[in-house]
Parts: sequence; C-alpha cells; structure tokens
Amino acid sequence: MSELKNDRFLRTLMRQPVDRTPIWMMRQAGRYLPEYRATRQQAGSFLDLCKNAELACEVTLQPLRRYPMDAAILFSDILTVPDALGLGLYFEEGEGPKFRKTVRSEADLAALNSVNADDDLGYVMNAVRTIRNALNGDVPLIGFSGSPWTLATYMVEGGSSKDFARVKAMAYDQPALMHALLELLADAVADYLAAQVRAGAQALQIFDTWGGSLSAAGYREFSLQYMRRIIEQLPAESDGRPVPVIVFTKGGGQWLEVIADCGAQAVGIDWTTDIQGARSRVGDRVALQGNMDPSMLFASPGRIREEVAAILAGYGAGSGHVFNLGHGITPGVNPDNVTAFVDAVQELSPQYHQR
Amino acid sequence: MSELKNDRFLRTLMRQPVDRTPIWMMRQAGRYLPEYRATRQQAGSFLDLCKNAELACEVTLQPLRRYPMDAAILFSDILTVPDALGLGLYFEEGEGPKFRKTVRSEADLAALNSVNADDDLGYVMNAVRTIRNALNGDVPLIGFSGSPWTLATYMVEGGSSKDFARVKAMAYDQPALMHALLELLADAVADYLAAQVRAGAQALQIFDTWGGSLSAAGYREFSLQYMRRIIEQLPAESDGRPVPVIVFTKGGGQWLEVIADCGAQAVGIDWTTDIQGARSRVGDRVALQGNMDPSMLFASPGRIREEVAAILAGYGAGSGHVFNLGHGITPGVNPDNVTAFVDAVQELSPQYHQR
Repeated sequence: MSELKNDRFLRTLMRQPVDRTPIWMMRQAGRYLPEYRATRQQAGSFLDLCKNAELACEVTLQPLRRYPMDAAILFSDILTVPDALGLGLYFEEGEGPKFRKTVRSEADLAALNSVNADDDLGYVMNAVRTIRNALNGDVPLIGFSGSPWTLATYMVEGGSSKDFARVKAMAYDQPALMHALLELLADAVADYLAAQVRAGAQALQIFDTWGGSLSAAGYREFSLQYMRRIIEQLPAESDGRPVPVIVFTKGGGQWLEVIADCGAQAVGIDWTTDIQGARSRVGDRVALQGNMDPSMLFASPGRIREEVAAILAGYGAGSGHVFNLGHGITPGVNPDNVTAFVDAVQELSPQYHQR
Repeated sequence: MSELKNDRFLRTLMRQPVDRTPIWMMRQAGRYLPEYRATRQQAGSFLDLCKNAELACEVTLQPLRRYPMDAAILFSDILTVPDALGLGLYFEEGEGPKFRKTVRSEADLAALNSVNADDDLGYVMNAVRTIRNALNGDVPLIGFSGSPWTLATYMVEGGSSKDFARVKAMAYDQPALMHALLELLADAVADYLAAQVRAGAQALQIFDTWGGSLSAAGYREFSLQYMRRIIEQLPAESDGRPVPVIVFTKGGGQWLEVIADCGAQAVGIDWTTDIQGARSRVGDRVALQGNMDPSMLFASPGRIREEVAAILAGYGAGSGHVFNLGHGITPGVNPDNVTAFVDAVQELSPQYHQR
C-alpha cells in the first residue's frame, strides 16, 4: 500500500506534534452534499449503497474533493453487525433504522447467527479495500462500528426509541441476559473492527450513540465496559503503525474521566462539553475529538469562524485535538458553510502548534 | 388559607431538617393513570383540560389519592405564555405541541401581544386557586413555567425540533433579536409565576427542557441568565413563608456549578448525573431534586426499590434532597410500579434524617 501523505490525524490521536489541527466531520459523506444525493439515487436504497463497494467508495471520497479533510471515513451503517447476526436491518423512508426480528429472550439470543466478519460482512471489507486503494495514501481511512449498548438498543427495541423502555427493562430486570447479549456483541464488534483493520482501516471509531441515555452507573456497567472489551481485542498496529481508537459517547460529557481510562487513544466529545474543561479533566491520557455544535453550520460563515476560533483557543496549545462537529452533520446544511468551517480550522489552528 | 399539614417538601428545598426524604414525580398527573385518561376524554383536548379549572384540579389530585406524594403540581402546559403572546398553541394527536405563528423577525417580535398574567392567563390562576383550595393544606402546590430558552425554541421553530436549526441560527447570527425575545419572555414568565404565587402556588419550578441542547457557553448566554432574570423578579415569600424555586435543565448535569448560582433554592438533575457527585459539586448552596431514570419504572418492584436505595445512599445523610424522577413519568408505566417507587422512598429514607 502507498505511503501516507497526510498523517496529521493519526499523529494527533497519538498526541504527537503536528503543524495544525486536523479536521474531519462525522457523516461528512452525507445528504447535505448534492453529489451524495445523486449517487444515493443511483444506488437505490441506503443499504444498497452500503453494499456496493464502488458507490460506497465514491460517496466516501466526495467530501474530500470539496474540502481538505484530514481523514476519510468508511461509508457504512452502525448496524451492520446486528444485520449479520440475522435481525434483518431495513430503513423506512423518513424513519430510523428498523429490524425485522428483535432480541428479547434467551431463545432470541440463542437463535442469532454466528458471524465471521471477513465472510459475513465481506461487503464492508470490500468497501474498505476499495476506498483505501482509491485514497492512494492521501489521508487515513477510519473504520467504525456502533457500540455494543447502542447496537443492543436497536436489537431489543426493534428500531429507534425515545425512552428505551424495553432495553432498559431488560438491563434492569434481566441483567444476565443483557450482559450475555452485550458480550456477544462486543466480541462480534471486535472481530468486525479487526477485519476492517486487516482490510485497510487505519483508525477506528466506536459510535456509542445511546450510551448517554443511561445513568452514570448504568453507563459503566452496560456500555463502557463492553467498549473496553472490544479495545482489548483489537490489533495494536497495522503496517507498522498504531491503529488508534476513538470512543464517542454522545451525551457522555459527565463521564469523561472514566471514558478516558477505557483503553482508547481518543475520546469524542459533543458540543455540550466545554473543551477546555474536558482537556483539563482527561489530562494527557487521551486525545480529544470535537466539538462544534452541528447547528452552528446554519449560522453565517463569519459566526462559524468565530466559533472555530473559540474552540481552538479553548483546547489551547499543543497536539491532541482532532477538530470535528459534536455530532453528525445535519442534512440541511449549505455545503458552502462547511467550506468556511474547514477553512477556519486550517487557517486559525497553526498558531497552536508552534514548536 | 388552611395551614400546611405536610411541609416536608418546602422545608427540604430550604435545606431544613425533615423526618424523611419528600417525593413527587414530574408529570405525576398524567397518562399512565387510567383515571387521568378518563378525565382527559371527558374534557376534550389537552388544552380544554388545562383551561377547565375543575377538571385540571381533578387530575392534579388524582395521583395524591393513589400515592402519598409530598407535593402537588399545577396541571397545565409549559407553553401557556407563548400562547397568550398570540402564537396559537395547539396539539396534534401523537405529535408534540405546535404554534400557528412563529417568531423569526423583529416584526414578529413586535407583533406579540403584551400579556398580563392575571387577566390573559386567568384560566391558569383559576386552576391554581381551585387546586390550592381543594388541597386544603394537605401538601404544598407547585406552580411552573417553561424557561425562556425552552419557550423560544418552540416559538421560533413552530413546534418540537430535533436539531433546533432555526432557533440556534437566530441565536448565533442575530443575537440582538434573540436576546430581545428572551428578555421579553423572562419578564412575561416572571409576571406569570408571580401571579401563580398570588393565586396560591407555594413553590415554583422552571422547566428548562431544551437548555441541554446548547453548548456550555450558549447555555449561560441564552438560557441560564434569563432564568436568573426571572428569579430576581419573583416574590421571596407568600403567607409569611419563602417560595422556593427549582430550576431543572434536562441534560444540564455538566453545568451544575453555574446553575447552583442562579438564585434558585434547588436544582433538578436528570438520571445521567451521579447524585453523590452532584451534591459534592453544589455543596450547601442549593437543594437537589431527582433523579431516578423514568425507565426504571418499567423494571420490577424489587429492582425499583434497589435503585431508590442506591440514590438515597448516594445523596447521603441530611436534608436537601427531594426525590423525583430524572424526567417526567413515561405514559406506559404500570401504576403499581409507582406504588413500589413511592413506598421505597418513604420506607428507606428516614435513616438518612436522624437527628
């Protein structure tokens, strides 16, 4: 494989010196881009797009053609693993993801397929290989999965949920069943992420989208410990380089100290967390990723630039900050505002990296 | 008015000694109760129910007949003030609240009605008087309103929102307009809450349902300072007793230190915040209210009791803790589980209040 031309993102995750703060955006390949919407229409459904390596590669690269992002992220879904386990993932227009089957009993758990990621999620590995090849070393490729707790919420509820009544009732009343499901998911996700690394992923992000719905104690018991279990099973390096892991718990700002001890190299923070306070809380244990309010992209370019300046100043001098939004980009954003965002990070961040 | 027979709730908000931890539940008069659903059907729409003092009183008292709650809360909606300002509040079945008009410009702001709460929200004051009279001093009556920022989100968006794109774009790009709206709302809410006190409310809660959608800096600028502005205008006493104010910012657990300085006597915390840590952070500045996960009420009575025990132990010995859920009770809860919840607080809390 070709040598990496821009390793700012990987170096920052390892808290090594860089020339400026790297940037990428969660959901950077997405509906706010007209070219994405065109490719999506060509592909058919969202899942068709995920399963077509050429088109998944195309949409992965689209934001990089517009903006000088410092990383690409695999185009896929967080719920591929439960789909492979046999639940039947589907999407209804205008609604969140749904599963045809749910897991609510020991029998449901026993009925899940055993999954070998290389075989059963081969379409993802094809996409990773295709994208890595097409990137040609320009920037590193991020692989990802949903966290075990996040996957479990969809698997138990059968789809998105407002109050997580069923999955929480299971966690609270049938903890043995819940832990058995989470263990199975942690091991399947570890296998899945390791396969992505073998296929070419150079960093990994675990999206813990719904960890923030738990109590402080529930978070440690049902979400964090299973992310730790995944990280313990991952390959430390690939191609002679470390493969850093980013853990992102939306709504996890109160728990940064424990998250920073889960074995990940970096912790993603959403926009409700003050980044200056976050840095002082995690010290030099991990890098931080984030954290502009995605809705700031609905403001004017000048206001966006001010916000970037404030976040850069909040983090302060030195490496260890990957700029990002505090959550995925919102579909209705004007792509020109993203230009203002990315330009601001590029132009305003070098002063924080003088040696 | 008759003397208050149970002042455990009011004493706790002032951090005075009590015999046991008081309890009430956000949305305790609500859809989980079959008798509520029957009265609601009799009334017609949700707003018809709010505007009928006798029926609003009936549903306010219903949970007190089932459970030995230590406080009643006015049955009303958080959006009565914007409705009186002329926006036309309505509810569509299965959806959140909506407004017929929105506020997105200086002209929209100038077109708002001026509101005198005693006259223009007289139906609320009638309900307060009717309920206070019917309570006959059994427990204190809590009045409430939405926070200025929370009201503004609905007024600008025209209803519920997922990402608050419009209201945040206004806050970020037209801060003068946003602040003018928030000032107007703070003063209208202060007038409204003061009128509730004159009508008989003995404590007040400000529901900052959407303050948690803001960044740390945005929260202080757009939500917290306007709650402080309200509190500064409220009467300190009524009938010779203090009228304590509870501020509840859902998702505000990261900002407890600054919330505790806003002038309120108590701070509500949702279930994501560890109550032991919260107490050590706010010290003796304020009482705390909360914070069991509402979804815990879907678990078994035994598990609910364990959780109550853990939260009581987390807060520890001494006054200053009002037991509550970390958010409103979920409609699908079995009322018998609420019995287990309330009984557990009653039975397990006296040990933390020995003199």
